[in-house]
Amino acid sequence: RVCWIKDIVVSVTRDNMEAMKGIIQKYQHKRISLVEAGVTRHRSIFNGLKALAEDQPDSKLSKPEVVIIHDAVRPFVEEDILLKVATAAKEHGAAGAIRPLVSTVISPSADGCLDHSLERARHRASEMPQAFLYDVIYAAYQQCSDYDLEFGTECLQLALKYCHVKAKLVEGSPDLWKVTYKRDLYAAESIIKERISQHICIVMDTKEDEEHVGHHLEEMLKNELNVSIQISTGRDLQQIILEQCYSFVCVNVMTSAFEETQKLLNMLKESHLSVLYPVVVISVHFLDYKSVHFDHKMENLMQIRELAKEVKESNVLLCGLLIYYPQDEQKLQDSLRQGATIIATLIKERNSAFIGQLLIA
Amino acid sequence: RVCWIKDIVVSVTRDNMEAMKGIIQKYQHKRISLVEAGVTRHRSIFNGLKALAEDQPDSKLSKPEVVIIHDAVRPFVEEDILLKVATAAKEHGAAGAIRPLVSTVISPSADGCLDHSLERARHRASEMPQAFLYDVIYAAYQQCSDYDLEFGTECLQLALKYCHVKAKLVEGSPDLWKVTYKRDLYAAESIIKERISQHICIVMDTKEDEEHVGHHLEEMLKNELNVSIQISTGRDLQQIILEQCYSFVCVNVMTSAFEETQKLLNMLKESHLSVLYPVVVISVHFLDYKSVHFDHKMENLMQIRELAKEVKESNVLLCGLLIYYPQDEQKLQDSLRQGATIIATLIKERNSAFIGQLLIA
Repeated sequence: RVCWIKDIVVSVTRDNMEAMKGIIQKYQHKRISLVEAGVTRHRSIFNGLKALAEDQPDSKLSKPEVVIIHDAVRPFVEEDILLKVATAAKEHGAAGAIRPLVSTVISPSADGCLDHSLERARHRASEMPQAFLYDVIYAAYQQCSDYDLEFGTECLQLALKYCHVKAKLVEGSPDLWKVTYKRDLYAAESIIKERISQHICIVMDTKEDEEHVGHHLEEMLKNELNVSIQISTGRDLQQIILEQCYSFVCVNVMTSAFEETQKLLNMLKESHLSVLYPVVVISVHFLDYKSVHFDHKMENLMQIRELAKEVKESNVLLCGLLIYYPQDEQKLQDSLRQGATIIATLIKERNSAFIGQLLIA
Repeated sequence: RVCWIKDIVVSVTRDNMEAMKGIIQKYQHKRISLVEAGVTRHRSIFNGLKALAEDQPDSKLSKPEVVIIHDAVRPFVEEDILLKVATAAKEHGAAGAIRPLVSTVISPSADGCLDHSLERARHRASEMPQAFLYDVIYAAYQQCSDYDLEFGTECLQLALKYCHVKAKLVEGSPDLWKVTYKRDLYAAESIIKERISQHICIVMDTKEDEEHVGHHLEEMLKNELNVSIQISTGRDLQQIILEQCYSFVCVNVMTSAFEETQKLLNMLKESHLSVLYPVVVISVHFLDYKSVHFDHKMENLMQIRELAKEVKESNVLLCGLLIYYPQDEQKLQDSLRQGATIIATLIKERNSAFIGQLLIA
């Protein structure tokens, strides 16, 4: 994802080695080398650093000037903080991301009572990423004791202790927190869902006057979701998919079946966009089900179940939405509003249990 | 919620005072008194303590022996930790919940570089609740300086500094974390949803032999959801509602309309169970829609939209689920499995966008 990073060395426990190789192959990662993890944090990092040393036989890796150390439990690291710590490390020899403390830190006495509490404003939580001149951190690990390797938790401290390098501290974003407890997995899932729902593309099968129902629906979606919404008439779809839009609303005013939706699904399949995250597609149909022959139209639309099952294989979640389209203007507005709420929820939740359903607004 | 707590004093900013009064009235809280919050943490706590002092004119509150201090940003506090800190405070004069540190804590120098890092294993995060002999903490606040009141963050430290009381530290549960960032709100929402989905009641409209579809569905739900499932035949429903079950699956094998569901909805309405959290009710119907006259049955079932709109007022989320019931055993199993997935998702997500929908499995 970050083009100026040359090599990525990942420490993996022996038990997970095969699974990790599978992931690298599945997502076609090119820059990753694997080393076996140690039993402690510092031993794993040391193994990674050794792989980058000059004297490795048969290694395709070359010794870098600056090395960034990061951990997998902080998945939301942004390029700008990587750049900041790498730049600061080049200048100072070492650098690390910090965050304000959320709780006061205290020191217990041996009998489990309060010995003293630290002033919260004068301390920080040390987070990742951290960066170092390679020669500094490698030298520090070569000198450090078995006690350090067993019980140490802080690389910046090793650089200070063994190489007398004072790390530059860089303010990180709130998203650098450590995914530790079950609640953190809930939070991480919600953050990912929010990110991939930030941009919605509405595909219209018509370019009629601005007053038509598709545009009403667009307005209501804007009220419902605080995201960017783009209208497509089909020809620019390839570009929109390339820009990594993960949410599509296919508005079918003119057609009564799935021609437009089918076109979109084919393009999505070819693009491999959905390898990493599920793509949501909602096929919207307008119907005055009190006046037309309900049964026939429904049968037509029930094909969505088969269609949804088929595209599920490629991680595309397809749902149908039937919007009641009566003559009465007020009722139409109500229907559109409810439709917008359903669309917003399907996009935000990305829940595979509802694929193939025909929801009604 | 905790019967041995006599009075609860809440510090509220002037701007939120009216809203807070509204909440107290809505949920009929009996033991809560309100005081105006100060501009800092310690000033707010001091205001609360003053309200409990002996010399308050016109106060209905009396001075307690032990006072527990807690903050609203840790909503998942359990009775057992409250009891632990209160008991320890009675013995030691002060006590507080602690948690292991997730990140290493460091001390920056004035120029933004690392001065030193603390050994993570020797420090703890100080959380809430904390408890004190009332006389200890009130005396500490009366003596503490303006600097303490402005910049201090730790009540245990005040008891130590001014009353020489060494607080007993009590290990808290992971759920005592502080809801601070947006991701914490996501996590809190997921935790609440998980808690109120821990117990499901399946209401059967029949007591036929064990082989019938309702029991198959129950089996599949057990596979899908790791929660306790109780079967009700209707007569014990009152008791189940009293035990605060928030999730109901109404299985209609014998009836084709909503008689059983309607009975349940009436009982829920009378119980006021849904004041605090939404109750999910899923009305399940079996239908071989390839053989019976689809149109007529559907029209019957479409009444669910009106019914759902009506009970939405009382925070009850009603959805319908149509399970395809063919002669073919394999197909029936597939249908039941998909139905169980949909039910599990509706219960876990509790999303009001889907109320009144008739989902199809």
